[in-house]
Amino acid sequence: MTSRRIYLDHAATTPVDPRVLEAMLPYFTEKFGNPSGVHALAQEAQRALEDARARVAAVLGCRPSEVTFTSGGSESDNAAIRGVARACRACGNHIITSAVEHHAVLHACQELEREGFQVTYVPVDGYGRVDPDDVARAVTDRTILVSVMYANNEVGTVEPVAEIARLVKQVNPAVVVHTDAVQAAGLLDLDVGRLGVDLLSLSAHKFFGPKGVGLLYIRRGTPFSPLIVGGNQERNRRAGTENVPGIVGLAVALELAESGRAAHVQHCRRLRDRLIAGVLQRVPGSRLNGHPTERLANNAHFSFEGVDSESLLAGLDLAGICASSGSACTTGSAEPSHVLVAMGAGPAWTRGTLRLTLGPGNSDADIDYVLEILPDLVGRLRTAGALAAGSMLK
Amino acid sequence: MTSRRIYLDHAATTPVDPRVLEAMLPYFTEKFGNPSGVHALAQEAQRALEDARARVAAVLGCRPSEVTFTSGGSESDNAAIRGVARACRACGNHIITSAVEHHAVLHACQELEREGFQVTYVPVDGYGRVDPDDVARAVTDRTILVSVMYANNEVGTVEPVAEIARLVKQVNPAVVVHTDAVQAAGLLDLDVGRLGVDLLSLSAHKFFGPKGVGLLYIRRGTPFSPLIVGGNQERNRRAGTENVPGIVGLAVALELAESGRAAHVQHCRRLRDRLIAGVLQRVPGSRLNGHPTERLANNAHFSFEGVDSESLLAGLDLAGICASSGSACTTGSAEPSHVLVAMGAGPAWTRGTLRLTLGPGNSDADIDYVLEILPDLVGRLRTAGALAAGSMLK
Repeated sequence: MTSRRIYLDHAATTPVDPRVLEAMLPYFTEKFGNPSGVHALAQEAQRALEDARARVAAVLGCRPSEVTFTSGGSESDNAAIRGVARACRACGNHIITSAVEHHAVLHACQELEREGFQVTYVPVDGYGRVDPDDVARAVTDRTILVSVMYANNEVGTVEPVAEIARLVKQVNPAVVVHTDAVQAAGLLDLDVGRLGVDLLSLSAHKFFGPKGVGLLYIRRGTPFSPLIVGGNQERNRRAGTENVPGIVGLAVALELAESGRAAHVQHCRRLRDRLIAGVLQRVPGSRLNGHPTERLANNAHFSFEGVDSESLLAGLDLAGICASSGSACTTGSAEPSHVLVAMGAGPAWTRGTLRLTLGPGNSDADIDYVLEILPDLVGRLRTAGALAAGSMLK
Repeated sequence: MTSRRIYLDHAATTPVDPRVLEAMLPYFTEKFGNPSGVHALAQEAQRALEDARARVAAVLGCRPSEVTFTSGGSESDNAAIRGVARACRACGNHIITSAVEHHAVLHACQELEREGFQVTYVPVDGYGRVDPDDVARAVTDRTILVSVMYANNEVGTVEPVAEIARLVKQVNPAVVVHTDAVQAAGLLDLDVGRLGVDLLSLSAHKFFGPKGVGLLYIRRGTPFSPLIVGGNQERNRRAGTENVPGIVGLAVALELAESGRAAHVQHCRRLRDRLIAGVLQRVPGSRLNGHPTERLANNAHFSFEGVDSESLLAGLDLAGICASSGSACTTGSAEPSHVLVAMGAGPAWTRGTLRLTLGPGNSDADIDYVLEILPDLVGRLRTAGALAAGSMLK
C-alpha cells in the first residue's frame, strides 16, 4: 500500500473542476427554480439554462436551439439512434455503424435489428480506423443513419468523421450522420460545421464537468423522435425537469475544455509520448494498441503478453496508480474487448490490456513512477503465472 | 415589486436541503471515481452507490437490487411503461392507465398506441379520484400493465393505489402494476409492500434532493426491458455512468423526507387548511379543485371565475409569491389542464387556476400574506377584465 495516488483513468471519468462546481452551487439551494415555471425563481433558472445553451452552442459552432441537454453520453447515443430510426422508419430501415463503437451505440443498433432494421457494422483496420470509403460504399437508398464515433474510448484512435460525413452526404444527402464524441471534448475540434455531422453526443463528466448530464447536438431539420416523452421541455426533444446545476456545470466545463484545449493537448501529448516510448522500451512482450499518431493526445493503450488485466490493475492499484483495462462500462465482463477483436488482435493481445489516460494534473514525475513500477510488476506477474502453471502441471 | 419572496411551488421543484448538498459535495471533486472501474477511487464510488441503494431500499421496504437509479421522474415513468410493454409484448398488448396521469405516463402510452398497443384511460370522479373497481373491470387476459399515479401533481388528489393493485392482482396476477409516486415522497407512505405495486417512480428534486436524478423501483421478477442500453450498469437495467453525487443526494434526501414525514405532513396540513378556508371565504367565485380530504397535505389548488391564470400568476409574482397554475411541465400550453377536464370542470373553472404547494419553510405569516394579496388581486383582475371587455364592445 502507498499513500501516493496517480490518476490515469481520465477516459473513464474526471473530477469536477472547482470552477465548474462553483458555478453550479447557487443552483442547488438558492436559484433552485423549475425552468418551466413563470415566477421569478423559475425565470432565473430558465435564464441560466438558456445562457448555458448559448455558451455550448458557441463552442460547437451551432444555434442554441440545436442543443438538447440529456443525462449523459449513453442517453445521447440512444436518443440519437432510436430518435432517427423512429422518425425515418417510413423512408428506410438501414443503419451503418462501425465495429468499434461504444456499447451505447452498438446495443441500441442491436435492439433496432430485433425490430426489423438492418445494420451494417463497418470493419476497422489493425489500428482501429474506419475507412471512409467502406462507409460510403455501404450506403444504399434505404440507409437512414450513419453513426461513427469521433474517438475510440478504449484505444484512443481518432476516426475520420469529417471525411465520412462528406462522402456519405455525396452518395445520399438524406442520410443522417451521428458521431459519439464523448471522448473528444478538450482534445479534438468540436465544431459541428467542420465535422459535417447532424448529431453529436457529449457527456460532461468526461471533460471535468459533473456526472449525470450530457448533450445531443441535433442539426436543424434533422428527423428526430424523442427517447423520453412527457413535458414539453427542451423543445419537445427531451422531457423531464432540466438538471439546471448540471447543465450550468456542463457549459462552464465545455468552455474551459475548449479554451484550454491547445495547452491541454500539448501537455498530454508530451507526457503520453514519454509514457508510450518508456513502456515499449522497458517492458518486453508489450505493444501499443490503436493508431500511432491518429490517437487522442491523452490515451496510451497497451497489451502485455502472458499477463491478465485483472492482476495488472490490482498491482497498479496497490502502488497507487488508478488505471483500467479498457472501457469502464464493460468492467467485470469476461469477454475480450470487441474493439481489440475488431482490430484483429489475437488472444495473446486481448487478455493483458492496460489503458492509461492522462489529465492536466499529471506530471513527468507520474510518468517516471509508472515507468518504475510497471516493468517490474509485469515481470513478477509473468513469473507468478509461470510458477502457477508449473504447479498445476505437477 | 417587493423584496419579500414566498415560495409556494414545492410541487414543481424544491431547493436542495443543505444536508443533502453537503453529502453530495465530496463526490464531485474528491471521490469522483467511475463506479465501474476497479481501482481504489472507483471502488470508493461503487461503495457510495451501493450504500445509497441500501438506504433507499430501507425507505421503500424493498431489496437494494430492486432499486434502479435514473435521471428523474420522466425517465422512470418512460422506462416503466416502455420497459414492461417491450418485455411483455408476447403476452399481451393492453395497458390500463388513468385520464389524470402526468404526461410522462400519458405520452408514453400514446406512443405505444401508435405501435399497436391498446390503452384504456380509466376516468376519474369530480375530485380526480380513480375508482379501483373501474380499473379491475378493465383488466382482460391481454392486459400487461396498469399505471395509476399515487398523487396527482396538479390537484393533489391521492389515488387508491394499494386498493387498485390488490383488485388488479385478484383478477389477473400476471399484470404488472406501476405507480408514478413523484409527488408522494415526504407526504405519503412509500412502502412498496403495503402499496402492492411492482414498479414505482420517484424524482429527487421533488423532495429536497437534486435535479437530474430519480429512481425506478422494479420488484424482483417483473418483466422489464431497459430504456437506455449500453454498458452493464444498474444490473443491465439502465446504462450510463452513474450520477454518483446525485444518487448520494437522492438517498440522503429520501431518508430525511421519510424521517421527517409525520411532522412535515402536520405542518403543511395545518397551513394548507388555513389557506384553503381563507381563500374560499375571502374570494367570491372561487372553488377548491381535487379531493377535500384525500389530497396531499401540501397542496391547495383553486379555480377563480373570470380570471386567467397568466395574469394571476404575474400579479402574485410581483407581490413576491411564487406559484403556478398547475403542472410546471405544461407551462406555456394554451390547452386547459387535462386533469381538470377529466374531472368534468367546465371552461369557467379551467381558465383561472392556481396551485399553491407548501414546504417546511412556509409559515403562518406566509398564509396571512397570501390571504391579504390574493382577494384584492382577483378582484382587480376581474374589474380590468370587465373594463377591457367593455371597451372592446364600444
